[in-house]
Amino acid sequence: MTDRPDLTSSTDSLPQTLPDEFSFIRRHFRRLAGKDALDLTDDAAVFTPPSGKELVIAADAMVEGVHFLPDDPPDTIGRKLLRTNLSDMAAMGANPFAWLLTLACPKADSRYNDAWFEAFSDGLAEDQALFGVSLLGGDTTSTRGPLVLSLTILGDVSPGQALRRNGAQEGDGLWVTGTIGDGALGLLALQDKVADPTGWLTERYRLPRPRLGLDLSGIAHAAMDVSDGLVQDTGHLARESELGARLNVDSVPLSDAARSVVTDNDGLALCLTGGDDYELLLAVPDDQTSALLARCRAQKIAVTRIGEFVSDQAGVQVLRHDGSLFPLRHQGWSHF
Amino acid sequence: MTDRPDLTSSTDSLPQTLPDEFSFIRRHFRRLAGKDALDLTDDAAVFTPPSGKELVIAADAMVEGVHFLPDDPPDTIGRKLLRTNLSDMAAMGANPFAWLLTLACPKADSRYNDAWFEAFSDGLAEDQALFGVSLLGGDTTSTRGPLVLSLTILGDVSPGQALRRNGAQEGDGLWVTGTIGDGALGLLALQDKVADPTGWLTERYRLPRPRLGLDLSGIAHAAMDVSDGLVQDTGHLARESELGARLNVDSVPLSDAARSVVTDNDGLALCLTGGDDYELLLAVPDDQTSALLARCRAQKIAVTRIGEFVSDQAGVQVLRHDGSLFPLRHQGWSHF
Repeated sequence: MTDRPDLTSSTDSLPQTLPDEFSFIRRHFRRLAGKDALDLTDDAAVFTPPSGKELVIAADAMVEGVHFLPDDPPDTIGRKLLRTNLSDMAAMGANPFAWLLTLACPKADSRYNDAWFEAFSDGLAEDQALFGVSLLGGDTTSTRGPLVLSLTILGDVSPGQALRRNGAQEGDGLWVTGTIGDGALGLLALQDKVADPTGWLTERYRLPRPRLGLDLSGIAHAAMDVSDGLVQDTGHLARESELGARLNVDSVPLSDAARSVVTDNDGLALCLTGGDDYELLLAVPDDQTSALLARCRAQKIAVTRIGEFVSDQAGVQVLRHDGSLFPLRHQGWSHF
Repeated sequence: MTDRPDLTSSTDSLPQTLPDEFSFIRRHFRRLAGKDALDLTDDAAVFTPPSGKELVIAADAMVEGVHFLPDDPPDTIGRKLLRTNLSDMAAMGANPFAWLLTLACPKADSRYNDAWFEAFSDGLAEDQALFGVSLLGGDTTSTRGPLVLSLTILGDVSPGQALRRNGAQEGDGLWVTGTIGDGALGLLALQDKVADPTGWLTERYRLPRPRLGLDLSGIAHAAMDVSDGLVQDTGHLARESELGARLNVDSVPLSDAARSVVTDNDGLALCLTGGDDYELLLAVPDDQTSALLARCRAQKIAVTRIGEFVSDQAGVQVLRHDGSLFPLRHQGWSHF
């Protein structure tokens, strides 16, 4: 996010006006910049990594019309992207501290005006304070297509303590935080396909809640966040650990708002495969159950055992309590 | 760049096919992944920062039709983005070691097929080897707009040795590496507006040459890379240092290829303002001139004194050798 001035004609050596890109960054992003960002005026940011830690880094992109709706409130759009990245940090057991943002902005689209970006930046400022991170840098450019945002997140973790996907062991319980399906139902609510009188589902679609701070090293054998559908992501965790998983559909935690609109198997299947949950999926040995429950209680985060990892099958079996198979047409969402 | 499998129906617990996104990442990007990237299978990468160093981080985006042409060879497009980011590392005096990539791919555009991404990845593999960096992670998604790429680069620098933009002092020489204007003329050559019989200009547009490895700490007071036009970027360096600059247009180094097509003031003005140079712009006190020349000679990089920093004016004065003002309508390029 480099200031790029188009100062003035050389026949007049006094700077007169700031160019669009320069003033845009100054207006909307400089206030988010941490001390290491060098006021966003240099080619890069410089920081001293936390002593005695490993660093954890991830990048995610969001595209208008794919990951958010064109008429979503602008203050939630940047926060959603930041929170999905923070959820990746939570999945690794990392402590996030900084982020970078690039944006390709549709210049011909008058919605993306100064007021829009002021609200966008307001939302990010609020979440920066909430999650203790600061902006390090980035880039702005124009596009003839939809708004594309890309965010890189940086965190730290004690050496060897990062949670991985490949550590689940046979017999581990399959656990999930929070509730599942709200995000997918929230998208339907915004499309007027389901009722959402309290706004809970809509808010869960727009503002994921990254499950940071649980400190599950030594408790969970493996972890990831649920972004592309509970069943698909369970399959991923199992496959990376060279195991299978059995998932008890009747144990999957649904919010009250979800229960009030999920009236049949199709609705339940949507919750299991819709994605946009950003809850943590965990492999936890049974002798760590009480430790898991204590950590989650301390952070006021619900956690539910929804199945177990097995070695007698590959893939994911989704079962009802009576042992019958639950019908699913697909397991989740592919962004590509 | 997370693998996201859409494995199979739950009524059949054996994984059968990999989803598009999963296999796409496996086919084209896993071979670029460094050891810290966890094979691109986790939510994030984990690495140990180099001991006793500061880290330097930057992100830049490139959009089809803005920063590259839709029919540019795919192997050069990723390399151009990587090299522009490496140029940011060079400007900071940093040693790059890793990068992350997000891409928003136009799914409806049949040009962006497997063969295209294989060539794209081939180019990146070549440059990874050339510059000693490796892929740490990223994300893939689809878009209804043009291809948008965003790259984050990570490097290290000895504590306190990062070059900044704000350190120029009155009387410092203004120096530039390599030659100026080739990139802007290369774009014109690709549009059949100027001749480029040797292909030099075209190659310079497509493949910038990041000026890494010069080790100018203690020699240069300030540095940045020239991306948006020599005059504009000189103005930026001067302004951040609270100085002005005088730039001697007749000293600006042009390649033989550029000289053969620059026949008037308009052509020269294009070189001074066109951008896409990715050369280093340096503020160097005269008592460090011989050290600068020695470092550049050792790396076989040309360097030329093109002006000086002054305190008796703000902005940039662009002068001919006879002291007359050189006519410029604007100073550079705003991407936004």
